Amino acid sequence: MLKLYDDPDSGNGYKVQLLLHLLGTLYELVEVNAIQGATRKKSFLAKNPNGKIPLLELEDGSLLPESNAILFYLAEGTPWLQDDRLGRAQALQWMFFEQYSHEPYIAVLRYWVRHTSKTPENEPQWAAKEKGGYAALSVMERTLRASDWLLGEKPSIADISLYAYTHVADQGGFDLTRYAGVCAWIGRFPELPGYVPFPGRLKESDDRKV
Amino acid sequence: MLKLYDDPDSGNGYKVQLLLHLLGTLYELVEVNAIQGATRKKSFLAKNPNGKIPLLELEDGSLLPESNAILFYLAEGTPWLQDDRLGRAQALQWMFFEQYSHEPYIAVLRYWVRHTSKTPENEPQWAAKEKGGYAALSVMERTLRASDWLLGEKPSIADISLYAYTHVADQGGFDLTRYAGVCAWIGRFPELPGYVPFPGRLKESDDRKV
Repeated sequence: MLKLYDDPDSGNGYKVQLLLHLLGTLYELVEVNAIQGATRKKSFLAKNPNGKIPLLELEDGSLLPESNAILFYLAEGTPWLQDDRLGRAQALQWMFFEQYSHEPYIAVLRYWVRHTSKTPENEPQWAAKEKGGYAALSVMERTLRASDWLLGEKPSIADISLYAYTHVADQGGFDLTRYAGVCAWIGRFPELPGYVPFPGRLKESDDRKV
Repeated sequence: MLKLYDDPDSGNGYKVQLLLHLLGTLYELVEVNAIQGATRKKSFLAKNPNGKIPLLELEDGSLLPESNAILFYLAEGTPWLQDDRLGRAQALQWMFFEQYSHEPYIAVLRYWVRHTSKTPENEPQWAAKEKGGYAALSVMERTLRASDWLLGEKPSIADISLYAYTHVADQGGFDLTRYAGVCAWIGRFPELPGYVPFPGRLKESDDRKV
């Protein structure tokens, strides 16, 4: 059986768990508390030298880190990944956009709001993080005003990748109501057969306000 | 013919040009000066709403941004991308590592050293950028001490992706001599048939010291 090392508060981990549920794939979950430093322990670094969850362990013991690489691995040969060369590259385009132009702003501000509040180190970066996050949402809005899903009429791993932190962007202080296309797209996910909610979305009572 | 929009000082763009040369694929190069703001102009944003180079325009007019998505598109069906499912996912694993855990440290410090020097905005982040860059080099070193290329005995797009900014990391102040495996790996690239050097490497005289 597949084994997934994950922290339930991680949107990067939720991407993988959501796809596994949508695919109906059974897996064993190993909870790793990243905030308490479990990903920096020697035993975990032996599995992923980059010290990050999620991490997928295959039946043969092979180890695959990086949420979007895991999504691609799991989705190959299923309806969740395009079966043409350009379509696959476009799914990857959105996933690289997610890791470079979206997550470092939207996920990081959510993390700061929930776990550190404003500190002398992060306060000078706060405005730039907000600006970058809104820029990413605007890029998504442009596409999602014109089509139901990022790559057209059917959902793909590009949507799963971007949904994870977008639908909890309000937890980092982002106002999603400005983005009608993005909001309508978020509303389509719970209708997907097999959908599971993000544990990190449900723990609203833990949220700290800055 | 393929058309590539690129800034010759961008390592992200160099990745694509290097692979095109290694494949022997002819392409038309359209130079876009990102530093002078050409990627924020309306005409360019109409092609890539995220306002970044490199951007590949296919023969049929389709537009593909994101350097690593372009590498994947160009490499499918060639010896530069693994032909097994796990191998493809492992190539992507290194490319997502590159965009999240490597480029934001190593490429950003290189950019600051060359184009902005220390400013009140970036100075508080300088030490964290150095730490993150060295952490990324250490992850690479662990693998490159044990094998010639990131995925084993043959070079792949994972190597091309990481080579671009690693081999010019010294331009951002990083001391590569600590990493014998990484240095040996860098030394293998010029031997590859079709190799072309990075224009941004050659312009050493432009380097500014901080």
